[in-house]
Amino acid sequence: MKACILSVGTEILMGSILNTNTKYLSEKLNEYGVSVLYHTSVGDNPQRLKETFEYYLNKVDIVITTGGLGPTQDDLTKEVIAKIMGCPLQRDDTIYAKIEAYFDGANRVMTDNNAKQALVPIGGKALENDKGTAPGIYIGKNNKHVFLLPGPPREMQHLFELHVGPMIEKEKNQVIDSKYIKIFGLGESTVEDKLLPLIDGQVNPTIATYAKRGEIEIRVTASGQRQSETEELLTPVVTHIQELFGDSVYSIDGGTLAELVGQRLIKEKLTVALAESCTGGLLAGALTDIPGISSVLQAGFVTYSNDAKVSLLGVSEKTLEAHGAVSSETALEMIAGLNKKIGADISVSITGIAGPGGASDSKPVGLVYIGLSYFGQMEVHQFNFHGDRSRVRSYSVLSALNLIRKKII
Amino acid sequence: MKACILSVGTEILMGSILNTNTKYLSEKLNEYGVSVLYHTSVGDNPQRLKETFEYYLNKVDIVITTGGLGPTQDDLTKEVIAKIMGCPLQRDDTIYAKIEAYFDGANRVMTDNNAKQALVPIGGKALENDKGTAPGIYIGKNNKHVFLLPGPPREMQHLFELHVGPMIEKEKNQVIDSKYIKIFGLGESTVEDKLLPLIDGQVNPTIATYAKRGEIEIRVTASGQRQSETEELLTPVVTHIQELFGDSVYSIDGGTLAELVGQRLIKEKLTVALAESCTGGLLAGALTDIPGISSVLQAGFVTYSNDAKVSLLGVSEKTLEAHGAVSSETALEMIAGLNKKIGADISVSITGIAGPGGASDSKPVGLVYIGLSYFGQMEVHQFNFHGDRSRVRSYSVLSALNLIRKKII
Repeated sequence: MKACILSVGTEILMGSILNTNTKYLSEKLNEYGVSVLYHTSVGDNPQRLKETFEYYLNKVDIVITTGGLGPTQDDLTKEVIAKIMGCPLQRDDTIYAKIEAYFDGANRVMTDNNAKQALVPIGGKALENDKGTAPGIYIGKNNKHVFLLPGPPREMQHLFELHVGPMIEKEKNQVIDSKYIKIFGLGESTVEDKLLPLIDGQVNPTIATYAKRGEIEIRVTASGQRQSETEELLTPVVTHIQELFGDSVYSIDGGTLAELVGQRLIKEKLTVALAESCTGGLLAGALTDIPGISSVLQAGFVTYSNDAKVSLLGVSEKTLEAHGAVSSETALEMIAGLNKKIGADISVSITGIAGPGGASDSKPVGLVYIGLSYFGQMEVHQFNFHGDRSRVRSYSVLSALNLIRKKII
Repeated sequence: MKACILSVGTEILMGSILNTNTKYLSEKLNEYGVSVLYHTSVGDNPQRLKETFEYYLNKVDIVITTGGLGPTQDDLTKEVIAKIMGCPLQRDDTIYAKIEAYFDGANRVMTDNNAKQALVPIGGKALENDKGTAPGIYIGKNNKHVFLLPGPPREMQHLFELHVGPMIEKEKNQVIDSKYIKIFGLGESTVEDKLLPLIDGQVNPTIATYAKRGEIEIRVTASGQRQSETEELLTPVVTHIQELFGDSVYSIDGGTLAELVGQRLIKEKLTVALAESCTGGLLAGALTDIPGISSVLQAGFVTYSNDAKVSLLGVSEKTLEAHGAVSSETALEMIAGLNKKIGADISVSITGIAGPGGASDSKPVGLVYIGLSYFGQMEVHQFNFHGDRSRVRSYSVLSALNLIRKKII
């Protein structure tokens, strides 16, 4: 099946908002085995919306629109498309009652505008929305499938997962199942090169990679008649990929590296202390993003200056003079200082050159030392990251998390 | 003038990349007074690209494409569109020499594929690209203006600023000038409500607002025959907006709040010490994003647990018992502790409930206390932020930066 995603809203054409809905829907539809052939956006203009919708409906099997379902006069996606599809609008009493209850609960007056959200095309179907007042709409006619979804990403994604995905699955008479394998510590091109023989000629399951700064996700998607069949298709491929990438794989169907490490620390009651120089608090910031981490994160130090390294962590001035702040020796004394001062199960230190300044011939931008003490056993790892200040800092944080992961998981 | 932005690339339709190019171009074109009527994306498919381009060229004055200018076989934007526009391709020797030099410099062999990047439509114009090998292309014909830009955002933005913007300005025979006013501490709807009388009926300059988490940017854009004319149009409106929002305005044509504060601290040699509880290092992380901050940032403490507040900052256990960790009293003792231990010119403490856990009836999620000591003068500010953990934490960081700003700028 072929699809077009049509975003409606003048704010998109003004560049006021980034169109993340279209990316989300594209990724999902491809997972369901639907070929997305077009993206398009128009403003809140009935004539242009009409022409654009008709143009693309003619070319594909599925059109999904986002936006223009709200209560204001500008919101006219439903009105325009119901007319084109030949489905007059009619009030749906269940939805009307729900909107009424919402306004009662919020002690607000429901206006006629709000009531228009309860209109549903005759022959169409309302897609119930627990996260907002505007329901989604489905119209199926002449082998065309049209889904109207609200614009706010949270509501849109909710309706896709609850209604659209399952309806497409049913239409295709198939079960679609995906596994997400997450990898850290390898470049995207290295991962793709290694996967190539596996991807080549692979139809079911399909394999796709997505790279976010440092973390690479491999999606393996299978379709079949039953869940047991997709599982049979997925298992050997996932195992094969795990073997290919060894302990660079940090999760299957799991969260981010920080979530994985943070949650494990909490579960195992492993206490942690941090001393950060070039990352200046970002590692602590990433770990404290995990609810409940306060039970194990004993202390963090941002020792950006040499003075702070000496006075707060007890790094010796001699070491700083002889080897510099960015050195294996300093990283080691930073964790030794943490052990003496805090005595956590795990101590981590980071010192490096994030740039743009501070580099020399022997110590280029991107040189980073990470010290790790695990129940008193101390080690220091050297890294040479590429890229600008922000990239060096975020790779340092991820690498530190990855070093902790390898000890505790 | 009316425009359509056409993104070319199967990776966009797969959902592998977020289409930030289209947002950038929309924002810029609107600044130049061009109405963007359509966004559209197609894959690397010559027939669909042809149909889509023809459809939209018929409807607008300007079509800007992004992507598909690279050296691979998939890259066919130039070939397809030059044909539609009736402009055969010819090798441009200057560009050819430049690509050749690039490959010589990189010690790589230049292939025929790379050579195709030196082809320029006869009657068209190459838009020189300092940041990559593929030049942009301009074709002007029958009152239609077609710009082909490369896909990588850095190259695309560079070519827009260097060539496309000025060409549109010239075509309109006008100078376009913008001022960016940045505001913190007010909600987006409050800002818009206050601006409404100014926006209503305002044609030149135009006023638009963009909200990023907590920071609101107001863009004022004027067009005129000469720079002096646009300045005359802009100045009273910018002054009026400054008066409307008073000291909530933190910069005009400047950077982020962290950049502004960080750079001022460095310039004035004002030393800083930080103690963070609920933000767990994010304030330190934001400040250490500023190159050169090491000269003034003396130390940062992540005292997430009560134990750390007591042992590292000297907060009294009595205070923690009587008032809790999230209290004005604790925030005060945290800065007092910093003053005693570090003695920086400016000390900042943050303690609050980021959620989802840890809240009570009297202390809801979003309750945050920020302590500020400025040359020994101590004060504590209470905030009640809305939203989830991540939003509470980032508003806390911005609010702390804003408190520092009010002291030093």
